[in-house]
Amino acid sequence: MEKLIEKMLTGDKRSCARLITKVENDEDEARQIIKKIHKYTGNARVIGITGPPGAGKSTLTDKLVRLLLNEGKKVAIIAVDPTSPYSGGSILGDRIRMQDLALEANVFIRSLGTRGYLGGLSRSTKDVVKVLDAYGADYIFIETVGVGQSEVDIIKTADTILMVMVPGLGDDIQSIKAGIMEIGDIFAINKADLFGAERTATEINMMLDLGQNIERRPPVKLVCAREKQGINELLDELKGHIKYLEDTGKLRERRYRNTKVEILEMIEEHLRRIVIGYTDKDDKLDIRVNEILDKDKNIYQVIDEFLSVINK
Amino acid sequence: MEKLIEKMLTGDKRSCARLITKVENDEDEARQIIKKIHKYTGNARVIGITGPPGAGKSTLTDKLVRLLLNEGKKVAIIAVDPTSPYSGGSILGDRIRMQDLALEANVFIRSLGTRGYLGGLSRSTKDVVKVLDAYGADYIFIETVGVGQSEVDIIKTADTILMVMVPGLGDDIQSIKAGIMEIGDIFAINKADLFGAERTATEINMMLDLGQNIERRPPVKLVCAREKQGINELLDELKGHIKYLEDTGKLRERRYRNTKVEILEMIEEHLRRIVIGYTDKDDKLDIRVNEILDKDKNIYQVIDEFLSVINK
Repeated sequence: MEKLIEKMLTGDKRSCARLITKVENDEDEARQIIKKIHKYTGNARVIGITGPPGAGKSTLTDKLVRLLLNEGKKVAIIAVDPTSPYSGGSILGDRIRMQDLALEANVFIRSLGTRGYLGGLSRSTKDVVKVLDAYGADYIFIETVGVGQSEVDIIKTADTILMVMVPGLGDDIQSIKAGIMEIGDIFAINKADLFGAERTATEINMMLDLGQNIERRPPVKLVCAREKQGINELLDELKGHIKYLEDTGKLRERRYRNTKVEILEMIEEHLRRIVIGYTDKDDKLDIRVNEILDKDKNIYQVIDEFLSVINK
Repeated sequence: MEKLIEKMLTGDKRSCARLITKVENDEDEARQIIKKIHKYTGNARVIGITGPPGAGKSTLTDKLVRLLLNEGKKVAIIAVDPTSPYSGGSILGDRIRMQDLALEANVFIRSLGTRGYLGGLSRSTKDVVKVLDAYGADYIFIETVGVGQSEVDIIKTADTILMVMVPGLGDDIQSIKAGIMEIGDIFAINKADLFGAERTATEINMMLDLGQNIERRPPVKLVCAREKQGINELLDELKGHIKYLEDTGKLRERRYRNTKVEILEMIEEHLRRIVIGYTDKDDKLDIRVNEILDKDKNIYQVIDEFLSVINK
């Protein structure tokens, strides 16, 4: 593994891919790898891209990444979105075009699964970001679909959040999404050649103007990824936001907050396993649940019993 | 408190209200109350009502409850939906009409807040259900808005889930909601006098036919709550589902599963507090996070340190 890491640090793509596979599949190896690469992390800028299915997030990512490649940057893409062509979803044409990008020397693409019901980011996502960071990626794009938990999780991982919208989302969606829109640092209305783009922009602008506690009012950009319109301007906004984070010390603030959450979540996960290890043994949980349903015990008695194991 | 509980058990509405307030506001009191009333619980049937904002969930609940009152039943309504007239939302006319219901001797209405970002049910919701159960409610309706976490949480609390839809929800919502539709035991398409009701019914029926692992194919009913059309039939479906749960032993199964989840969630909450209690002391967490960001330590070193203390 030492060797793999060494090779990865010199920019070897295949070693990077193999390390990511290890990080995904084996928690102990992940642990060892992260310990060893930690001092090489912190340099990549992590951009979360989210929005409804069909908003064209992958096409937009594709265009942004190509511009960065022209600047000589090294870029990684993590697709958590199951409808993304990078993940094998979407129509064939898209998929072939996207896979093209994967052939570029300075691009690394990886598709990751989600976890559970509404699809939060998996535990390993943060570790994969760290490997790609140490690998030397200047920018890491994480594409998630804007439904459920992964959208909430992404703010714990990314430095900058780009929300991709499309014209003609009805009032229903807009009202449902009100809470979620608060996480966007930059808004792109893609497919701006479609009818209603200006109106969608106006609506989003109105919502953002109503937003409170926003230190920096997010810009709203009309783009058309397929026609490569507005991509340069959008990239400027992304860079502008990153620069703003750096200049104001907010980059450190965000990473501080994210690291804190990461620590607490990992500790909780560890304790959860201790408890589940105990409750699963000898069907203890099963027996206690039945005792509660039969009114032999109440739930607080049971909880006290289970917790006494950890506190020991 | 003993006295309050005694009075509540004899059916005193005011005592019930005061106990619920205690359960909501004070965890230690909640604990004591639940311990004491546990043996009187388990008799109420809990019906979760969910669906998009504006689907007319409250009006439908209102009509269903009035039918149950005519049968001499005791009913409780918990409104977690912020747009519900029971919670003070919605337009004035609705609100006045709903508050009417609260004056009925056999109806108890309570509005509860949600928790956090995407609005899961608050910790106390389950405890409030238990109080209302011991109070002697035959049916407890929980109204939540079909957005985010509360919809997922409701399956952990209710015996039967009624999904309320409306005609003309676009494909966008349908696709986003695919996962969430799986939780419905019964579907009502409200405002069935609106254009597109039949089509919406057909679409939902098609989705349900595609659904796998469904032991009992959920029925889809066209209703018009405001005109009192189809309400009797819908109530029959609700009762039919409850009877099905009882006859097949699935009521116990669901409650078993829900109690299990409740235990595990309460343990996790407790663990979270242990962790935060330790890490917050002497700014330990703050110092360690900065050490990680400065690359003096890696995250696993920090976690090992915290765990070693907690495990002691």
